[in-house]
This record gives sequence, C-alpha cells and structure tokens, in this order.
Amino acid sequence: MTMGTQRYGAGIWHFATYVDRYATDGYGEARSLLEMIDLAGQVEDLTVVDINYPFVDPSLSLDTVEQALQRNGLSVIGITPEIYTRQFAKGAFTNPDAGIRRLANEMCNDAADVVRRFGADYVKLWPGQDGWDYPFQVDHRKLWQASIDGVAELAGQNPDLKFVIEYKPREPRVHMSYDSVARTLLGIEKMGLPNVGILLDFGHSLYGGESPADAAQLAIDHGRLFGMDVNDNLRGWDDDLIAGSVHPIELFEFFYTLRKNGWEGVWQLDQFPFREDSVAAANSAIGFLKAVERALDKLDFEGMQAAQDRQDAVTALNLARAALFSSY
Amino acid sequence: MTMGTQRYGAGIWHFATYVDRYATDGYGEARSLLEMIDLAGQVEDLTVVDINYPFVDPSLSLDTVEQALQRNGLSVIGITPEIYTRQFAKGAFTNPDAGIRRLANEMCNDAADVVRRFGADYVKLWPGQDGWDYPFQVDHRKLWQASIDGVAELAGQNPDLKFVIEYKPREPRVHMSYDSVARTLLGIEKMGLPNVGILLDFGHSLYGGESPADAAQLAIDHGRLFGMDVNDNLRGWDDDLIAGSVHPIELFEFFYTLRKNGWEGVWQLDQFPFREDSVAAANSAIGFLKAVERALDKLDFEGMQAAQDRQDAVTALNLARAALFSSY
Amino acid sequence: MTMGTQRYGAGIWHFATYVDRYATDGYGEARSLLEMIDLAGQVEDLTVVDINYPFVDPSLSLDTVEQALQRNGLSVIGITPEIYTRQFAKGAFTNPDAGIRRLANEMCNDAADVVRRFGADYVKLWPGQDGWDYPFQVDHRKLWQASIDGVAELAGQNPDLKFVIEYKPREPRVHMSYDSVARTLLGIEKMGLPNVGILLDFGHSLYGGESPADAAQLAIDHGRLFGMDVNDNLRGWDDDLIAGSVHPIELFEFFYTLRKNGWEGVWQLDQFPFREDSVAAANSAIGFLKAVERALDKLDFEGMQAAQDRQDAVTALNLARAALFSSY
Amino acid sequence: MTMGTQRYGAGIWHFATYVDRYATDGYGEARSLLEMIDLAGQVEDLTVVDINYPFVDPSLSLDTVEQALQRNGLSVIGITPEIYTRQFAKGAFTNPDAGIRRLANEMCNDAADVVRRFGADYVKLWPGQDGWDYPFQVDHRKLWQASIDGVAELAGQNPDLKFVIEYKPREPRVHMSYDSVARTLLGIEKMGLPNVGILLDFGHSLYGGESPADAAQLAIDHGRLFGMDVNDNLRGWDDDLIAGSVHPIELFEFFYTLRKNGWEGVWQLDQFPFREDSVAAANSAIGFLKAVERALDKLDFEGMQAAQDRQDAVTALNLARAALFSSY
Repeated sequence: MTMGTQRYGAGIWHFATYVDRYATDGYGEARSLLEMIDLAGQVEDLTVVDINYPFVDPSLSLDTVEQALQRNGLSVIGITPEIYTRQFAKGAFTNPDAGIRRLANEMCNDAADVVRRFGADYVKLWPGQDGWDYPFQVDHRKLWQASIDGVAELAGQNPDLKFVIEYKPREPRVHMSYDSVARTLLGIEKMGLPNVGILLDFGHSLYGGESPADAAQLAIDHGRLFGMDVNDNLRGWDDDLIAGSVHPIELFEFFYTLRKNGWEGVWQLDQFPFREDSVAAANSAIGFLKAVERALDKLDFEGMQAAQDRQDAVTALNLARAALFSSY
Repeated sequence: MTMGTQRYGAGIWHFATYVDRYATDGYGEARSLLEMIDLAGQVEDLTVVDINYPFVDPSLSLDTVEQALQRNGLSVIGITPEIYTRQFAKGAFTNPDAGIRRLANEMCNDAADVVRRFGADYVKLWPGQDGWDYPFQVDHRKLWQASIDGVAELAGQNPDLKFVIEYKPREPRVHMSYDSVARTLLGIEKMGLPNVGILLDFGHSLYGGESPADAAQLAIDHGRLFGMDVNDNLRGWDDDLIAGSVHPIELFEFFYTLRKNGWEGVWQLDQFPFREDSVAAANSAIGFLKAVERALDKLDFEGMQAAQDRQDAVTALNLARAALFSSY
Repeated sequence: MTMGTQRYGAGIWHFATYVDRYATDGYGEARSLLEMIDLAGQVEDLTVVDINYPFVDPSLSLDTVEQALQRNGLSVIGITPEIYTRQFAKGAFTNPDAGIRRLANEMCNDAADVVRRFGADYVKLWPGQDGWDYPFQVDHRKLWQASIDGVAELAGQNPDLKFVIEYKPREPRVHMSYDSVARTLLGIEKMGLPNVGILLDFGHSLYGGESPADAAQLAIDHGRLFGMDVNDNLRGWDDDLIAGSVHPIELFEFFYTLRKNGWEGVWQLDQFPFREDSVAAANSAIGFLKAVERALDKLDFEGMQAAQDRQDAVTALNLARAALFSSY
Repeated sequence: MTMGTQRYGAGIWHFATYVDRYATDGYGEARSLLEMIDLAGQVEDLTVVDINYPFVDPSLSLDTVEQALQRNGLSVIGITPEIYTRQFAKGAFTNPDAGIRRLANEMCNDAADVVRRFGADYVKLWPGQDGWDYPFQVDHRKLWQASIDGVAELAGQNPDLKFVIEYKPREPRVHMSYDSVARTLLGIEKMGLPNVGILLDFGHSLYGGESPADAAQLAIDHGRLFGMDVNDNLRGWDDDLIAGSVHPIELFEFFYTLRKNGWEGVWQLDQFPFREDSVAAANSAIGFLKAVERALDKLDFEGMQAAQDRQDAVTALNLARAALFSSY
C-alpha cells in the first residue's frame, strides 16, 4: 500500500459477499471480518475503513480486529451499527414497538464505545428500515418526530462523539424517512446539537434527484458535512457501482465543490461488487479518483467561477472536460 | 354553479390553450383572459381562481376582470407573477443579471398590488427558471442564497401579504432550486419571516419522489402550508393530468392528512388539459374530489390511526379502500 | 376456501420469508415448502400456485408436495426453475461459461418433468441474472443471441410443454436481457416455436415504462399471452406491493383488456410481503381483484369503446371511475 | 469549416429558438430557416443537416434554401415532416379522424419530394403525437395497427426512398406508440418492407431505460439502423443537452458499437440549446465527439472483446477509461 496526500477509504462491506432476495444462497462464500480486512489491505492507496457493528463474527475480539487492521495499514473512520436487520424490520428509531427502539439505542451506544476504542471519527447511522412502504401505512408526523428523537437522544448521550446520518431515498423500505439532504438538515436543525451531521453518499444523492455537488454545498453551508462516500448508479436505484463508471462529470463536480470549500476529509467508497473481484473494483475506483485529483489540480478554477457567475454552461463544461478527459 | 361546504378552485391557465416545443402553433386558438374566466364559470362547484399577472391581454383593466369574475361567481385566491418568461430564461431571483433580478422583484410587487385589489390570499411564486441545466453550470451556494434573498426581500417589502412558494423538481429548468418540500422549508426557516409559506402541488410532490401526504404533514408541522393544488402524473414528469386519474389512493391519503390536521383551505386544480375540453376535465376532477370528500366522511379515522400506530399496512389499506371504492 | 368463476393463484414465494442485502438474517424465520403451501391454503379463493424448483427443502418428495397441495385444495399452474441463484450469478442462458449454461438447461428440463408430473400449464423462465451491470461489460449481439438460443433449445427439447418468459427491466441485474414485452416478442418471433410465450407481470410492465394494458394487448395480438400475475409498485422498482394499492385504475384497464379479448386464465399474485402477514396480504389483494371483477360486470363496454375510438380521455375515465369506485 | 473522415450533422432546429408551455414568448427572437442555416454554417466540422418540412417560412423556395445550404457547405441528410403540430394534436398516423390521417400522409409525401429534390437519404418520421395520455384513453390494438399501417403506406407509396422512424418513450404525448427500439423493430417486421428503418436517438434510448449500445446492436442485427443522433439527458426526460455532458462513457460505448459493426453514417446532433449559444453548443458537442473518435482509434478492441466474452466489467471499464480519459 502506498499513500499520497489524499486519504482513501471504504466501507468494509465492499469486501464482503452479498445475498439478495433471489440469490438467497449468496453471490459467493460468506467471508469473515478478518478476511474482509485482509482484502481491503490488498487495495492500493486504501488507508481507512468503516466497519459494521456487531461484527459479522460475533465472538471476534476488538483486539483481534485491531491487529488485523494494523497489519494491513488500516485505521477506522466510522462504525456502522446494524440497525436494519430482522429485529428492526419495521424501523429502528421509528419502530412501533418501544422495546425495539430501546434495542436500537443500545446497539448505537455500543457502537459509540467501539468508535472510542478505535479512535474513529463517528458513529454512522443509516436507518434503512425507518420509513414506510404503503400509502396510509404510517402517521407521518409521529414517524418523523421519532426519526429526530432517536438521533437526538444518541447525540445527547454521547456529546464527545460525532453522529452522521447517511440519508437515502429508499431501499430496503419503499421510502426512508431520512430521504434527502434537505430533509436531513431540517431534522438536524430541529435537534439543535453540534455533534450530528451528514454522511453524503454520492449515489444516494444522484438517484434521489439531487445534484450531489449542490447537496454537498448545502450541507457544508449548514456546517454539517461530516463525511462522504462515492459509487455510481443509473439514477433509478442504489446500484453501488464503481465510482465514475456512469457519471464521471458529476463526480468531478462533486469533488470540485469539496475542494473549492476547503473540505478535507477521506474520500470513501461505498460499492457493492456483487459479481466482481472486490479488490479490482476498489482499485478501479481509486484509480479514477486519482485522475479526478489530477484534474482538479489542472482545472482553471478562476475561469470556472467566472463561467458559473454568468451561468455559462458551455464554457463551464468545456473547462471541466479539458481537465478531466486528459488526466487518466 | 352550486356550492357545498368545501370550496374548489383552479389556476385560470386550466382554461387556456397551450404551446410546447413541438406544437409551436399551439393546441388550440389562443384565449383571452375573459374567455378563460367564462369557461371557469361553466364548471360546477368552482368558486375561486388563481390568475397569472401580467394578464394575457395587456390592456385589460382590473375592473373588467373583476366584472367577469363576478358574473361567473368567482373570487381570486392568488396572483401568479409570470417570472418565467423569456426575460427570465436564466432565472428571476437567481438571474446572473442584477437588472433582471430587479425586474422580477418589481413584477412581484405589482402582483402584490393586484392581490390587495382583489382581496386575494397570496402572491404565488413559482420560480420555474431559477435553477440549472448542466453539471458545473452554477455556483450552488450563490444560487441558493439568491433564491432565499429574492423571496425574503419581497416578503419584507409586503409584510401585510402572504407569499407562497410552489416548489417543483424541474421543468422548464432541468433542476429547480426550490425543488422539494424540505428544501423549501429549509429556505423559509432561513428567511425567518411569518408571511412566507408553501403552496403544495400534489403532482410536483409525487414526481419528486415524495409522499404528498408526508409533505403536507411536514409543511403543516412547520406552520407553512398556505395553499395546495392537485393533478396527477406518472411519477416521472409534471404531466398535470386530471386529479385522481392515476393515483387516487395517494390523493385520498393527502386529503386525509389535511382533514386530520384540520387544514381548511381551498382544494385547487392545477391541470393542463392539452387535448381535452377544459370544462369537462375540471368537472371530472371535481367530481372525483367530491367522492373523496364523501369517502373521508365515511372513513374509520380511529381504526386508521390504530393501524398506523402499529404500521399495519394491510389493515390501513383495507380501511382506505372500503371508504374510497364505495363513494363515487 | 371458496370458488367463483374466476380462478386466483399465487407464486408460492408469496408465503415465504425473504432476505435482502441488508437484512441478511431475513425478515422472519425461514419456511419450508409445506408451511408455505399450508399458508396458501388459508387464503380465501386461492386455488392454484406456481412453485420454485428445486424445492426449498431438497429432500422433499413430489408425492409429499402433492399431498400438501391436495389437502389445501390447490393445483399447480407452473414451475419456476431457480436459474438465478449463486451459480447463475453471471447468467443462466447467457453465462460466459458453457458448463453453467448446460446446468441451466438441465435444471429447466428437470422443471419440465415436474410440470408434467403435476399436470401444470408451463415452465416459467425468469432469467433474472441474464443481462449486464456496466457499460462495456457485454457483447450485446452475443448476449441477446444466447438469450434466444437458451429458450429455443428448451422449447425444442420439450415440444409437449409450454414455456413462458417473464420479462423484467432489471433486478438483480442492472439490466435484464428480456426487459420488455416488445423485446421478448421480438425474441420469440426469432425462435419461431409455438410453445414459447409470455408471462406478463403487471408490475414489471409498469415500472418498465409500459402501459400494462397495452403490453397485454400486444402479447395477445401475437398469440403469446400465456400467463400473467399482478402486484404494484411506485413505477421505479419492482416493489411487489399488494395489487391495486397504488395503481388501481391501470390495474382495472389491464383486466378490462383481458376480458375484452376473451382471455380466460388464472389471475395470479406475485407479491413479496416482506413485513406483512402473507395471508392477509393475499386476501387484501384478491378482495380488490374481486371488486375489479364486479366493476367489469358493471362497466359500459360499448360506451368505453366509443370513447376510445375518438380518444376521449375524459369520458373514458369517467366511465371507468363510475364502475370501479362503486364496486368494493 | 474543415472536414475529417467522419461526417457530422445536426437537426436544423438546433439553431432555432424555442417556446415551451411556460415561456410562451420564446427563449429568443424567432429565426428564419435561412438564419438557422447560416448559424449551422458557422459550426466547425458540420456538413449535413436535417430540415423540418414545411419550412418555418412558408413562402421560401427550395432554390433559396439550396443556395443557403451551398454557401454554407451543407448538404441535406433527411427531411422531417411536421406531423406533430396543432392539427395532429391527437396523432398523425393514429388520429381518430381519417381526414387528419390523410393530411399526415400527404405531408409526408410532400416531404418525400423534398428528399428527392435535395438528394437526401431519408424521410424522418417522428410521430410525437401518436400515442396516449390517460389510462383507458385508447384501444391499444387499433392504435398500434394504425401506427404500423401509416408508415407502411408511405413506404409502399415511395419504394425509391428510405423512411426512418425515430422512436421516443414520451413527449409531447404521455406515451408514444413507437416508444422503444424493440417495439419499433416489431412494427417494422410486421410491415415487411425493405425501406423502413430506425433513426436511433441516443437520448431517447437512454431515458427509455435502454442501453443505447444494445439498442444500436439490435437495430443493426435486424438490418434496420438507418440513422442516428446524439445528445444527453438525466435519464428521466428528453433534455436534449450537449452530447457527452452527462453520459460520456455510454456515449463512447455507443460509438464503439457502431465502429465494431462497421456502421459508417453521419454522427448527428439533436440538441435543444434553450439558453445557450447554439453554435457554441454544437462546437462543444462535436469537440467531444472528435475526442471519442480519437479514443476509438486508441482503444484496445481485442482486449475489450476478450473482457466482454467473460463479462469482466472491471477490465472492460478500465480499458474504456484509459482510452477516453486521455483523448481530449
């Protein structure tokens, strides 16, 4: 593994195998967390990971995980509590059963301890089962209030830590309550707590009908862009394809926006290589991200700003192309 | 024309003829405002209208319009300044040219005077040209700030009046800056003014990926649902079809949410009957809305709340069906 | 169980529990095939089922399954070979590995034997893994040719049986090769065999941008509508919601088209009640389908034809509403 | 104007100004056909155009148009009869009124004479008003039959000429009858005539959920790819943006497919620069298309074929990137 100035990361699930509702026997042999970490270690330029908690192997000790990370030159950026498995099928923070809501809170507090243990940056909340499937299914006021209360309670219980919400339009629920950047910021503003922010997933933003660059700018302007990850899709679903494989120009605009604002965090991958070699898929993505870095170095920022100030799409596009399509 | 307790309204453009980029000669002979008002008067149960300003006939006096309204038993609910014609092709509030932004402000202030003259409820702002078309085209921070500033300036200049923002995901711009209920509320909260609210268009909400019922609840909970209109579409574009023609159940849930919250305003139509008789299209829509009213009278609200409190989709759906599919 | 003139069916997976890529521990305890059959037996008015093969319990004998079906008053309409599990992750008929293509052929031939054993109507082919995920991933000519060849080979090997292709736009593949009614008919015409037809899934048609009524008419006009099933979704994904829960009018138009053409087959359900009671979800759907039957009895077919002949959308809609919204 | 081996073209409407249903006063001063031709002449590397008929200036003679073309170094590739204006609001070939269907036939026959006069390649049929808006609005069998009959009649009347159908999912109709490549090929096969083919619009294919590369391959394999044009969009609507501004990789795959099959026709633009300088927008697009040409010269075709033969997405993507992102 080598390192440049920009740090690259990945959700550790990038190196798992997957099931879906059809291939119930999975797209490959199940992998242990240690196997995933060793695969992550094979990726060039990868230095940080986000890890699900509880671990896929329940008996695994934190020490063992730490050793595996160290031998692969990896550190932990965040811990993602699994608040979207069977027991949370009808929601974590918004579950109709108060006992389940309590379980979700406890699991997230446990994850907070793991964040402290690894010196990570945040607990990542992805409440994928919080939402609804059918018209008339939920009381929308209560559901949204519970979405806010659940996160605020956690942030209040752990004022020393950051909590990031990864919004997403849908899946597995037909509609998720934290569905967009604006909705999530609206909820965070209601909470009024300094330690809750957004983890912006490029693909979620894209298939939710947002411009990821605009979403990033909005989160930054509210002081809430705490993390990000990238991937790609066909704008209709969270395909979690290799970053830049479909929307390289909007990906470039997204990173342009980050640099313009002086946002300096890890560039993470959230890809699901169902049928691909996971190390090759990560290398392919990071290879392109490094081209994006070079293109940013080359881009005429002043000319771009001038074009944007007069909404001159053709000039802006030509400048972006000149930089991006000569940097691979 | 007859009247029940619920008042029904329509944008006066429902009774216009239309052009598009292909049928540049229009889908029918151009109509004067007075002709449109007389057509509106032929619709059963229609009592209020929203009128574009400047009028389609520039020389028409306010008195003449008022007489036409009176003879048709119509009153005015809102005035919609035309801040989306040629001069505003690159935006009204966000136009790169300060002179054009000034023109937009002036036109809206003129519309405010017409609101006062007719005793209407609000100036309706639909900034359809404020947004972007291409990646890299705009500085997203500046664009959003200008979107907020433009509306806040107007509301500050006219504290005696209400201003409603009709958000929409896109069209004519590829992306509109006021694109969703949450984004619009976020902007309104920034303004911090009591006289700015939302006009929720059912179809815009639907094709923006929202649940219109959820969007209505959110706007109500922020005290900002100042108006609404309905129509229908295929969830991919603002087709402005006859209300209830595609999504009757979500339309029912939308009105259920309004009644549950005691929201008592006009039920308006925003339809574009390109190829249909406009009076027949309005009657068809209102005929269905009256069935929705009857279904609300019949619906088991307690049973519905209980089902929602346990997220019991099947029971909730069965209750909704029992009421709606027996009320025409 | 009671019976009317119209027979109702369901895919047996309606009564399974499910996994997805997040809730990898499943949305409930795994169920045996016999448990599923016993649940199907609890649904009012359900008389036929479609069964996956190999059975979820590998050691189960055909006799045992037959007994379970008989005690529940159920017969078999089709057998669905599982050509979309791990070994077929890169396709069944289009797999790059000839050995895997052979396995797919063998599994389908085994399924054909089960069809014969149960006196069922057809082998149902749903090649969900045949397609692609990325730009540049496949040679489109070869992929499509293999899609055709694989089905044609099966139909040629089993001239005494019918094979139905259930097309679908995507999932699990980002794009499926049999993606639409027209593409599938084009392939079937190339095969030139009498025993290959279409199983039209209402939801697949809907979220593929088709009008299901138009798709049914086209398949009928080519003499290839061999089966159908219904469900619902939000037009962006195969949500497999309860039939009629979102698009009751287009569902009504679909069945109107079948009746108008004298198409008399089983009305089947293909729903995935992830978080719902599966018997209640099936009863809710069939309850609505029976309302659709009553509405068809009531509909003014002559008036409808006259309205359609002049493309009079308002009259057609009013006629449809009058029948459907008074029949529950 | 300079020329390479590859010829570039554009629809002459690229150089028009536009109206839509909101900016009814248009996005700029109306332009005459001669003005459009003179603008087209200013674009580097543009040598052919497609012209609407009747001309926007009714009194303009063919000789005058020819002179304007000649002084700009332009020739005509196709003539597009305007079968989508007011009189055809309910369809051209499928209009419920036989008299209107006759008018459509006559206008297309007149266009055929202009094709002969200019030595152009084809009459381009874009029946944008042939389809439906509402559930229940049309008899789908009759509508489709009329779609086929209308084109077949024209092709039979003019066996010396080619007719190309430009399919499109929707707009201005909510659903167009010629909506996809497969449906159009199915219709063409029914006609059984050698002189009817497809003009494949990259953007229509993309937002219809197709892979344009796959659509091109299918049309080629049926011997029916008679023409093509490019542009871009956000996969939800026919935005007619500058080619390559959003989907450069799929655009590259599209041209890869053409070259692989030895398809040698004009690369045309079908863009609508509503708010942009039309010459700059055309130059930007062609500038990128020339980068695509260079990338094709550089691409490892053998390696690509080998990767595709094993469905190796990562290798295929890496090869495509290496060529495309170094060729501007």
